[in-house]
Amino acid sequence: MRNIKMTVEYDGTSYHGFQKQADQNLPTIQEALEKALRKLTGEEISVTGAGRTDAGVHAQGQVINFYTESSIPTGNFVRALNSVLPEDIVAKDAVEAPGDFHAQFWAKKKTYRYTIFNDTVPSVFFRRYSLFVPYKLNVDNMRKAASFLVGQHDFSAFRAAGSTARSSIRTMYRAEVEQEGELIHVYLEANGFLYNMVRIITGTLLYIGQGKLRVEEMKDIIASGDRTLAGPTVPPQGLCLMRVEY
Amino acid sequence: MRNIKMTVEYDGTSYHGFQKQADQNLPTIQEALEKALRKLTGEEISVTGAGRTDAGVHAQGQVINFYTESSIPTGNFVRALNSVLPEDIVAKDAVEAPGDFHAQFWAKKKTYRYTIFNDTVPSVFFRRYSLFVPYKLNVDNMRKAASFLVGQHDFSAFRAAGSTARSSIRTMYRAEVEQEGELIHVYLEANGFLYNMVRIITGTLLYIGQGKLRVEEMKDIIASGDRTLAGPTVPPQGLCLMRVEY
Repeated sequence: MRNIKMTVEYDGTSYHGFQKQADQNLPTIQEALEKALRKLTGEEISVTGAGRTDAGVHAQGQVINFYTESSIPTGNFVRALNSVLPEDIVAKDAVEAPGDFHAQFWAKKKTYRYTIFNDTVPSVFFRRYSLFVPYKLNVDNMRKAASFLVGQHDFSAFRAAGSTARSSIRTMYRAEVEQEGELIHVYLEANGFLYNMVRIITGTLLYIGQGKLRVEEMKDIIASGDRTLAGPTVPPQGLCLMRVEY
Repeated sequence: MRNIKMTVEYDGTSYHGFQKQADQNLPTIQEALEKALRKLTGEEISVTGAGRTDAGVHAQGQVINFYTESSIPTGNFVRALNSVLPEDIVAKDAVEAPGDFHAQFWAKKKTYRYTIFNDTVPSVFFRRYSLFVPYKLNVDNMRKAASFLVGQHDFSAFRAAGSTARSSIRTMYRAEVEQEGELIHVYLEANGFLYNMVRIITGTLLYIGQGKLRVEEMKDIIASGDRTLAGPTVPPQGLCLMRVEY
């Protein structure tokens, strides 16, 4: 059996997240990928994703792996798969992986981006890919506050109630806020993320950008481990899984 | 009666163009704007647009005008209208215009942008806003060929069969090709455009980028006035009306 590692991009707007749901009427990315692979190979293929993105969340660099007996060369796999995938999911590259490679367990680092559209009127072009924020934000303060996230911390304060991870200690390698016209991107790169962590961190940074919280309070929130001190969970459509490293 | 001039942005994907259709089942931008204005003011308002964008074509800076007896201050008109518009149409600003201002007849200059996504695999995020071109393009040659379009010319070679304009002479102020990663933007700014002119010019530039036509042939095509010598009409979703000047 070959073990194929593939990078996929998707617009999560029309999907109930990556992971297959018990309710077959809820379309998911995993299901769409498995259906396309079945069409292509005739095999019942089970796909493993590096990260289980939620409903409405996007990916530019989700990584999956799956086992197949198909003899399609990796060089042709991408184009062949794209010809049977819906247009909001695209395979970007495929390589032959070691037999025991596992897209989720082998992941060493993930990068997420949360995008805010900050203007007085919303944008029709970014509405599916950003959170519209009509009030003025102090991006410098957001940037300073984000820098306190870098390093090894207990991120309990940014963990949603439903999180099942055993430990809430993670190492943040990068936490940056970049402005590009009306767009404000929050980039977070870590060895792992707790449930809703990026969305709660972004909600906290928004409170800081608005002046509802002071820059220095970010340190206290991290130290407290108290979810009630952090900001709100921002909606899913601004979130994008950018990259997974192994 | 007040005459309101407004800038609107829209994602044309779900619409059969700007202009109201005889068939009421085909949704149009004009109809959606008139419906929202009726909701807001209680009046039967007729909207005039600067340019009649085709089905699937977008706008970042379409300009409209309409007459109203409403006393809503211009400063509040935008937010009020956005609260009743569908999310793929956004009012960006509103000003009081002279009584005889006409969004179409008073327009002096329009800028259109055609966007090409040039990579080996398509992008899910730009699929609604660009033409996917998987083959290598010589952007330098496209840029050189575009420069021949600047000035006053008879643009008959880039005019679709259905065009009803009396004269095909237009003045092109700007014709540039800009590259931004995988995106290639064709910017055209002129005192007016013939039917499908931007899409036929872009199709011709694509032939030049591919090497199907030589750079110098652009001059001959312009001079010939012969539609059959120019390139194909590229599809609508890459086209966006960027700006109208008065």
